[in-house]
Amino acid sequence: MHTIGIDLGGTNLRIGVFNEQGEIINEQSQPTEAAKGPQYVINQMAEIINQLKATYKIKAIGIGSPGPLNPHDGIIIEPPNLPGWVNIPIVQLLEEKISLPVKLENDANAAALAEATLGAGKGASSVFFITVSTGIGGGYVLNGELVSGAQGSCGEIGNMIVNPSPDAYHGPGLNKGALEGLASGTAIGRIGKERLNITNGAQGVFHLAEQGNKEAQAILDEAINYLAIGLANIVHTVNPEIIVIGGGVMKSKHLIVEPLIEKTKGYLYPSLKEDFVLKPALLDQKAGLIGAGLLPK
Amino acid sequence: MHTIGIDLGGTNLRIGVFNEQGEIINEQSQPTEAAKGPQYVINQMAEIINQLKATYKIKAIGIGSPGPLNPHDGIIIEPPNLPGWVNIPIVQLLEEKISLPVKLENDANAAALAEATLGAGKGASSVFFITVSTGIGGGYVLNGELVSGAQGSCGEIGNMIVNPSPDAYHGPGLNKGALEGLASGTAIGRIGKERLNITNGAQGVFHLAEQGNKEAQAILDEAINYLAIGLANIVHTVNPEIIVIGGGVMKSKHLIVEPLIEKTKGYLYPSLKEDFVLKPALLDQKAGLIGAGLLPK
Repeated sequence: MHTIGIDLGGTNLRIGVFNEQGEIINEQSQPTEAAKGPQYVINQMAEIINQLKATYKIKAIGIGSPGPLNPHDGIIIEPPNLPGWVNIPIVQLLEEKISLPVKLENDANAAALAEATLGAGKGASSVFFITVSTGIGGGYVLNGELVSGAQGSCGEIGNMIVNPSPDAYHGPGLNKGALEGLASGTAIGRIGKERLNITNGAQGVFHLAEQGNKEAQAILDEAINYLAIGLANIVHTVNPEIIVIGGGVMKSKHLIVEPLIEKTKGYLYPSLKEDFVLKPALLDQKAGLIGAGLLPK
Repeated sequence: MHTIGIDLGGTNLRIGVFNEQGEIINEQSQPTEAAKGPQYVINQMAEIINQLKATYKIKAIGIGSPGPLNPHDGIIIEPPNLPGWVNIPIVQLLEEKISLPVKLENDANAAALAEATLGAGKGASSVFFITVSTGIGGGYVLNGELVSGAQGSCGEIGNMIVNPSPDAYHGPGLNKGALEGLASGTAIGRIGKERLNITNGAQGVFHLAEQGNKEAQAILDEAINYLAIGLANIVHTVNPEIIVIGGGVMKSKHLIVEPLIEKTKGYLYPSLKEDFVLKPALLDQKAGLIGAGLLPK
């Protein structure tokens, strides 16, 4: 029996067929065309799935989608990355068209499940995954099971407050002083523009830092410090065996991982320092799709 | 079959016999006399247990102890509340004397299990418990199971950084700007002394605030704001169905709970505000003992 995983992105719709080992045996990708509305996109999904059903014995479908969404009710609430998609009961709508059970999770949770099951967290009893990219998200896998959270919002650490100062940056849709506003790729790019007039985003800051530019390095150090506060807060909250960090910013992981580990250890109780483990994600762009394929049991 | 729960406190040693419904059917308390050393206290425990074995059919023992400790190895590491107890393999030492299986957890985790199973969190699929007293601790119960954490430090939210400012208070053994240093009973008392020369601790601040003293109210508002940041960070990290709050400071819960709920909601993603639930603990002083009795399966 196989599963189908769907990575419903704002830009691309990726669909994979998975064998029982979680390996992709068939993969396709096309533009999501989200602007044509949910009904159009759901019809596209259903058509592809019904074609695949002719070739593979499919038992269930998993969808990783941008949040907020409610995984328990199968409803996409109102994701910034899918403009106009408001309260879409995607699970019900798709199930009606394909006559197979469908499971919905937010994309970061799906990626967390993939990294914990087949990626950098494989074998650990508890894994907290964090993705640092345009935004910051995450997911928590305990004893091999994804922890969704009561409203499906486990791992929404981008909105964790790490600086309550009235002067802290207040990003759109976030708390003032939220981690995402201070340490995401977008944040690094924004600060690079403010302080160094860099116009090519976080990449530009990383590039300058690598060349020895001290102001660029300072921007990076600040972001790493906020990430370390976020990771230490996660450790003191759920004490996972391992934290896995992925996302676009990790393209520059040689500039991030070691200082981030050191800085985080500095914020941990002495009894927790020695066993602190942070690893870069292994599955990269594929994590969301693989996780979607793993969602159905 | 019965269990025995032991609440090993810095001051008192409380021992209860529990039936299968988790009800206490026999309870005794005596000074811990921790200064006489672990071997003395463990001998005391063993003597009481061996007496109880003559009357009750006991299958296992649970101990709630101050941390840090390692629940997986059964070792008490070096709790500030048990001075001189360093790396004590209490589980092994006690098992040798009583020939019954022993399970060790930190006291806040035990209290969390009690509140989630029989207290304010009963019936919820996930419960985060927080205790605000001399210190701040907590515990996390998911699907009825206590989440210990890889090093047994799940719920150590007292050390969560909620203010990274260089000027933030730096309490002993804590991170600078840690929640416990800014919002515990000790913290409220400390600030009351600094600003209002109050010498009777948090109680004095609560008393003045109740009488309409604006400066005392401001101290309380600040502590509540930091607690709200802590709670919102917990929600965005694991999204529990309910947060239960207990501890000595909750004697003044009429001054705390409503503003804390409002403040916390202000820090949550819109999709999480409506369903946010915070309840005062129900089991009070008994939570640690009851939780210890629930530790053995």
